[in-house]
Amino acid sequence: MSQPPLTPPSGSRDFLPREVRRREAVIARIKQVFALHGYEPMETPAFERIEVLAGKYGEESDKLIFKILKRGEKAASGEADLALRYDLTVPAVRLYAHRRNELPRIFKRYQIGPVWRADRPGRGRFREFHQCDVDIFGSSSALADVDVIVTLSAALAAVGLDRFTIRLNSRRVLHAMMDSYGIAPARHGEALIALDKLDKIGADGVAAELAGRGLDGNVAAALTADLARPDFERILRARIADSGAGRTGLAEVDAILAHAGGAIGAGEIRFDPLLARGLDYYTGAIYEFAADGAGGSIAGGGRYDDLAGMFMKESVPICGGSLGIERILMLLDAEGAGAPAPLAYVTVWDEAAIGDALALAASLREAGLAAEIDLTSARLARQFKCADDRGARFALVRGPDEQAAGTVVVKDLASGAQDSVGLEQVVDHIRRALGG
Amino acid sequence: MSQPPLTPPSGSRDFLPREVRRREAVIARIKQVFALHGYEPMETPAFERIEVLAGKYGEESDKLIFKILKRGEKAASGEADLALRYDLTVPAVRLYAHRRNELPRIFKRYQIGPVWRADRPGRGRFREFHQCDVDIFGSSSALADVDVIVTLSAALAAVGLDRFTIRLNSRRVLHAMMDSYGIAPARHGEALIALDKLDKIGADGVAAELAGRGLDGNVAAALTADLARPDFERILRARIADSGAGRTGLAEVDAILAHAGGAIGAGEIRFDPLLARGLDYYTGAIYEFAADGAGGSIAGGGRYDDLAGMFMKESVPICGGSLGIERILMLLDAEGAGAPAPLAYVTVWDEAAIGDALALAASLREAGLAAEIDLTSARLARQFKCADDRGARFALVRGPDEQAAGTVVVKDLASGAQDSVGLEQVVDHIRRALGG
Repeated sequence: MSQPPLTPPSGSRDFLPREVRRREAVIARIKQVFALHGYEPMETPAFERIEVLAGKYGEESDKLIFKILKRGEKAASGEADLALRYDLTVPAVRLYAHRRNELPRIFKRYQIGPVWRADRPGRGRFREFHQCDVDIFGSSSALADVDVIVTLSAALAAVGLDRFTIRLNSRRVLHAMMDSYGIAPARHGEALIALDKLDKIGADGVAAELAGRGLDGNVAAALTADLARPDFERILRARIADSGAGRTGLAEVDAILAHAGGAIGAGEIRFDPLLARGLDYYTGAIYEFAADGAGGSIAGGGRYDDLAGMFMKESVPICGGSLGIERILMLLDAEGAGAPAPLAYVTVWDEAAIGDALALAASLREAGLAAEIDLTSARLARQFKCADDRGARFALVRGPDEQAAGTVVVKDLASGAQDSVGLEQVVDHIRRALGG
Repeated sequence: MSQPPLTPPSGSRDFLPREVRRREAVIARIKQVFALHGYEPMETPAFERIEVLAGKYGEESDKLIFKILKRGEKAASGEADLALRYDLTVPAVRLYAHRRNELPRIFKRYQIGPVWRADRPGRGRFREFHQCDVDIFGSSSALADVDVIVTLSAALAAVGLDRFTIRLNSRRVLHAMMDSYGIAPARHGEALIALDKLDKIGADGVAAELAGRGLDGNVAAALTADLARPDFERILRARIADSGAGRTGLAEVDAILAHAGGAIGAGEIRFDPLLARGLDYYTGAIYEFAADGAGGSIAGGGRYDDLAGMFMKESVPICGGSLGIERILMLLDAEGAGAPAPLAYVTVWDEAAIGDALALAASLREAGLAAEIDLTSARLARQFKCADDRGARFALVRGPDEQAAGTVVVKDLASGAQDSVGLEQVVDHIRRALGG
């Protein structure tokens, strides 16, 4: 049989021990912060029925869903019935709709796990990546949005990213703004996609894109002329003050600004009336976190009060946000994390000493010290080399002399120090060497 | 749009907070044991190229692999190019072959994560389930097999399953046995499938199945007549003592029995010359753990020295084993685990008190106590109800009197006790109530 390629599939990654430990340390800290804020863990499968995911994220995103072929005889049809989850939000809402009777009326959940998107891979963009989500089901209060923002901020601070800027907006503000410029509701989605590019292509670029998408040229010109003005926020607030959606949207933005401002540590939060965010399902407040001095967003979220209605008859207000662990890990100092627990390598003098070595290793582990025995059965010099290659911190020897005397020779492979220690004192000796 | 079904797909599961916490507690303990034995974490993606998995597990298993449709324009072809991992072993060997230059020569890895098999779902059998694997790359010593068995035993003991029986065999013993009865090597695979059913269908059933698979009737009769004899192990040892494979196989079984016997705590290990195990890739020692008093296996493993050769030119001896977390969780007492950290619910007196409530919650979290503020903005009585519904242990109130006096009313929702406490003493007060 020919040998298959050894790399992981495009956009996915393998992780060696150091990287796994580094990722797990960051994830553990985030989990702890989520739990401290009253969020509880919830899990859903890696895959969902296709119809659960379809039509939730927008047309472009739907194309990026990984689909799973039917099994058995139906496989030949080439049809798919399942799909890998595209985010953690839609499956969580499906689960909530299914089992809400077992949950508190206000339910705060977190989930940390992989999602899959068949996006073009790039720097910091993968096809398999982890999301760290918090969501609040059952509260329409702006305090719930504040709770999510405060929690995400605290999680970022806990992993060492305490300087960031949060851009805040409301989908209601965006819709009222587009209404006020005479953009028909059916066109709002397309106009949002163009507006979302303002940072990248400038006001003229947005005008061109709006016109290209068939919007009235005068409308596009009026909107983009205002966008370029330094007092655009004031203009906008005046334009939408008479609209119901506009007033509600501004009220939620202002409430979040008022209460989150003092509660997000070294972060900053400001109103950005042009922030759009990609996913279809948002209905109210939306926000994105950018780390100071780094491009791209490291967290984001918003309110999606209509999504539950796709799974159940009642409507349930929900808001939530997500940390992007991959970008965060890129920003963090790679050094310092990822070291394994110091390992004690118990050499094996000869065949007859195997039982003794196994027992010595077991007694170290009982005291919470990582320990293993030699597997090479080679000469002692080669066993020491293997200890080094294995990354061990200590090598332990128990030859006939030590057996007779009830001692162990403990060699500290970091300092080179070598000591003969009574069998009962080995644990203390190693702990002292580790500075414990 | 019609509402999709709310249940997770067949054979997969949702987990509510209590179950997640229970699973995570067990997994954390297993991880800790693996690390204490010198194993390091490694991760591979959820999916692999189909050709990486194909032909590794045996024909029956290959049919149970979940396949992923090609993306974009190629989706219409109905073809698949990726597949969800079927176990953690084959991807680990693929990764090892790819990056062995970055790893120690003897590499001990663990991995805990979901795998997917399109098996018929049943009690304790799922299509998405977790495996907890340890493997040793680069050692052909029976001590490596012992290391795996000792580590799996310690992990089981650590989660409370310290009474189990390990059945041990070697694929070499099985092949030598079949040779000695005149079964052609090309027929060994089929004969193993039949032998594996001895427990379920008895010696006569095995004879019938062997004959049904086209084996010579006399051969089948001779073998199954011996199987039924109480001294079968002695007969077998004599029959295969002259075969090279037989001697090697018996030697590895005996070495493992000698060294593992004393090192597996309350567990027992015994030679079972008929243990076969399903997966194709085993070449040497194989073993299965059964918890005393429970049907089915809770762990298993073996040596697979030829698998690496499917991914690289050199041959690398590898052995490893796996704990089945789902069966283990079924056996463990469901009570006691899964409780969340005690939560402090900070009520909000009125709009003007929001900032104060946020600050109080933040100060509790800084001391490591889980805390959240009320999101209902309802009357105090309803806020208390909500605290209860949220499962909070404490409700905190700070009205105008408490504001003026610099105090907080702390109500212990478990005992009903209600105390007025100085703002600076709240953390100590709660810790005392928790018995800390």
